[in-house]
Amino acid sequence: MSVLVVGSIALDTVKTPVEEHADQLGGSASYAAVGASFFSPVNLVGVVGEDFPESEFAFWKSRKIDPGGVQRAPGKTFRWSGEYAWDLNTRETRSVALNVFEDFRPQLPEYFRDTQFVLLANIAPSLQAHVLNQMRRPRFVIADTMDLWIQTTRKDLDALLPRLDLLILNESEAREITGDTSLIRAGRAIRRMGPKYVAVKKGEHGALLFGPDDFFSCGAYPLEDIRDPTGAGDTFAGGLAGYLAGQGAKQIDFAWLRRAVIFGSVLASFCVEAFSLNRLRCLTSKEIEERYEMFRVMSQFEVLP
Amino acid sequence: MSVLVVGSIALDTVKTPVEEHADQLGGSASYAAVGASFFSPVNLVGVVGEDFPESEFAFWKSRKIDPGGVQRAPGKTFRWSGEYAWDLNTRETRSVALNVFEDFRPQLPEYFRDTQFVLLANIAPSLQAHVLNQMRRPRFVIADTMDLWIQTTRKDLDALLPRLDLLILNESEAREITGDTSLIRAGRAIRRMGPKYVAVKKGEHGALLFGPDDFFSCGAYPLEDIRDPTGAGDTFAGGLAGYLAGQGAKQIDFAWLRRAVIFGSVLASFCVEAFSLNRLRCLTSKEIEERYEMFRVMSQFEVLP
Repeated sequence: MSVLVVGSIALDTVKTPVEEHADQLGGSASYAAVGASFFSPVNLVGVVGEDFPESEFAFWKSRKIDPGGVQRAPGKTFRWSGEYAWDLNTRETRSVALNVFEDFRPQLPEYFRDTQFVLLANIAPSLQAHVLNQMRRPRFVIADTMDLWIQTTRKDLDALLPRLDLLILNESEAREITGDTSLIRAGRAIRRMGPKYVAVKKGEHGALLFGPDDFFSCGAYPLEDIRDPTGAGDTFAGGLAGYLAGQGAKQIDFAWLRRAVIFGSVLASFCVEAFSLNRLRCLTSKEIEERYEMFRVMSQFEVLP
Repeated sequence: MSVLVVGSIALDTVKTPVEEHADQLGGSASYAAVGASFFSPVNLVGVVGEDFPESEFAFWKSRKIDPGGVQRAPGKTFRWSGEYAWDLNTRETRSVALNVFEDFRPQLPEYFRDTQFVLLANIAPSLQAHVLNQMRRPRFVIADTMDLWIQTTRKDLDALLPRLDLLILNESEAREITGDTSLIRAGRAIRRMGPKYVAVKKGEHGALLFGPDDFFSCGAYPLEDIRDPTGAGDTFAGGLAGYLAGQGAKQIDFAWLRRAVIFGSVLASFCVEAFSLNRLRCLTSKEIEERYEMFRVMSQFEVLP
């Protein structure tokens, strides 16, 4: 089955302590769509400007990503520039130029509206809701969010939460949205705000998943060298959503979600090995399966006799 | 088999945002010995003052903790007082009075020197080495350490490392001792300093274990409420060491160590549920086994078909 992905499509300029690359493909939808495409066809929704490379459309099509919902608008593509601190754990936004993204009001092609799995990648909650309003009967709706929306459009976000099957957010956002320092209490409190499931991304510490009766904790893949952390969270969401859609399970239960969280983590671990989407562009299914197995080995221990 | 535990024995005064308790049993050896005693007999080495309650000796004996290496010296027992911040994640030392601990120079009873498993709980590395020098042929030597020794007695610590089978330290200490922000690189670098295995404690994020060819990652037990974090790391070390000793395995391999890390985590998760050692005093083996199983359930996911 397919997954519909909506979010930002950007040209990013990223500086790390070691190197800098300008105008490379970025944005939440770009990472999420490619992450998902390893497991299922993707219906992509977004907006780009006149300067956006035609070659990226060709790349999407080569990966079964249907850009039928990507508008090309007059003006320039959304641009973001950021710089990472020496330890790659914190980053500063150097500049943001919304450009064509400023007036983005996604209109879904008719044939996108029956997509069963929906990933509302990180954009304003009002836009996420606007897309969801156009879907007919989605089976599983996932949304990613960020601190900016918690701080500036909290009402929109609160209205969206009860419409979600799964909310994805990171550790500090989980604490911020609940005002609770305990991640365990925070994860459970967010579920009471509406989403059936909540996934908390913890970067180098892995991820947590909260369900109605279950809890899951996994570590991060033990990478020694990270070249560019940009897009890791978006790729996690994409891999997770794509895996669920690709399995086409009649019922999404907690066991499926556990595996989906691992696949999301696997995809994110590849993402950060190179700038932009460069590692994902050449990634193979065999590499993904091998790393999934590594995840299993690194976290297993035996049943007591 | 037995495990020899050496470390500090203190009377702690601990303040959290909610409550304060004075002159309760504390110190690295106290927590570690009780943690270990759920799995194996313990030979305890330490020093207390004339004011130390006789009832604690009775408590130790009731738990198969042999206080044959605990000297009662003229003067007062080591006292420590600390206060936790509102989120319980950071603490400030309010006062330290070394008292009888200042001149502590452990002399092991003859019948302690053949103990096969050794846990050098958190004390100065020179004292840890002094104890190790008195052991005859220990099979497995574990040491815990802290930032203070990395900063003030680095040479002593460096000299100790090659004599260890397992070094236990926390996340920030792993970064400090290596000067590397990546925990994965740090863990591997510490192994190259001498210990065959390295365990990194990450508090609410669980623990990592590094071996010659293997890597293990586990989460923390999802506690909603923590009453007093004091001694969690010492209890982790004690539970881990006690489990290894109690199994009496001919050869300690990575599979044993994985389980030992889980048992250490289980014990630490109980420790923080109450002040001082109060939760551990009434803990049962059945509760430990149930929580071990919870750990397994919360971290398992399936093999790919």
